[in-house]
Amino acid sequence: MALKLYGAPMSTCTTRVMTCLHEKSVDFELVPVNLFAAEHKQPAFLAKNPFGQIPALEDNDLTLFESRAITSYVAEKFKETGTDLLRHKDLKEAALVKVWLEVESQQFHPPMSSTVYQFFVAPIQGKTPDQAIIDANLVKLGQVLDMYETKLSSTKYLAGDFYSLADLHHLSYTYYFMKTPFASLINERPHVKAWWEDITSRPAFKKVAEGMKFGGD
Amino acid sequence: MALKLYGAPMSTCTTRVMTCLHEKSVDFELVPVNLFAAEHKQPAFLAKNPFGQIPALEDNDLTLFESRAITSYVAEKFKETGTDLLRHKDLKEAALVKVWLEVESQQFHPPMSSTVYQFFVAPIQGKTPDQAIIDANLVKLGQVLDMYETKLSSTKYLAGDFYSLADLHHLSYTYYFMKTPFASLINERPHVKAWWEDITSRPAFKKVAEGMKFGGD
Repeated sequence: MALKLYGAPMSTCTTRVMTCLHEKSVDFELVPVNLFAAEHKQPAFLAKNPFGQIPALEDNDLTLFESRAITSYVAEKFKETGTDLLRHKDLKEAALVKVWLEVESQQFHPPMSSTVYQFFVAPIQGKTPDQAIIDANLVKLGQVLDMYETKLSSTKYLAGDFYSLADLHHLSYTYYFMKTPFASLINERPHVKAWWEDITSRPAFKKVAEGMKFGGD
Repeated sequence: MALKLYGAPMSTCTTRVMTCLHEKSVDFELVPVNLFAAEHKQPAFLAKNPFGQIPALEDNDLTLFESRAITSYVAEKFKETGTDLLRHKDLKEAALVKVWLEVESQQFHPPMSSTVYQFFVAPIQGKTPDQAIIDANLVKLGQVLDMYETKLSSTKYLAGDFYSLADLHHLSYTYYFMKTPFASLINERPHVKAWWEDITSRPAFKKVAEGMKFGGD
């Protein structure tokens, strides 16, 4: 049975998993969860993820949630198929992938997601974006991107001269971020910009980006 | 050559790695980094971790940072030694470990670390703890712990009836949290409390807890 991914094609965390599935050439069925009808807070979805967040993945009798856990599972289960996202044949490269997966999760994601939330999600919820929160997060994000600029001046991708799951995990949020007036944070750092253009040009992501309509085109 | 861990025995992120190394019965040398002298912001340490945060691990010519990446590397490299923290022989159990590793990282850690920061670190930096931040984070943490209470009423540990890296990752911050007036958030949830008593009674953590003197005894 094909994998079933419960989520929404415009959602950052759903598209993180979809991009990974495409990189691995794995068939899956996207089962839409209607966020505006709060389907993710209804018992049927909460049985898949008690935290009430998309996406969730069903692989026969196994149900998984947390997008980064799902990508990691997919990348490992299908390690011989498609792009080698974990560098599983080289302990050293695999270790560096782990490091940069955690950099995304712990350093990059908090200021990036807060900014995207304030800019796109708060208005939908009837709130005024909090400029002080945006400003503070842009400062943090700039500091993280300074480290990226240095790293990407010595290797083509974050973990080395190979595309990995660590790069992939950056795609979804940054894609929306690039539609904000703050895109200059990426564009003004030449190595970060070149990396961004490279990773967004991959067919697996281009296919997914078509559905990322949140905040308009 | 034995692994070299650069860090501090009272640091949450250093002790996360130390606990893992003890569970795996792996020899290592702890090389102290003096935070109060800002050694982690000096060139010698920044060459190991450009983000200037402890710990960093050296395994011969490989240098790693981000505590969760280091534990994951250690647990995988030494998978046949000591406690099986990743359940590497069972794809399904391994997948559930991944899920709960991400729950710790994305759901539990942000409100937990903010609270511990406000309570213990802000005063050292000459700041008054921000009660509004503490209150907001305690609400979020309580919601996460409600999910833990439900999960731990059906399995002994987070990913199943086996101790895993997902449980281990909770130890360091929660250890300090239990020294605050907010410890009731753990103690008033019977399954969470039993889990907490279980995981803190393991010899690998007891050895590490002896050095966790931050905020006094």
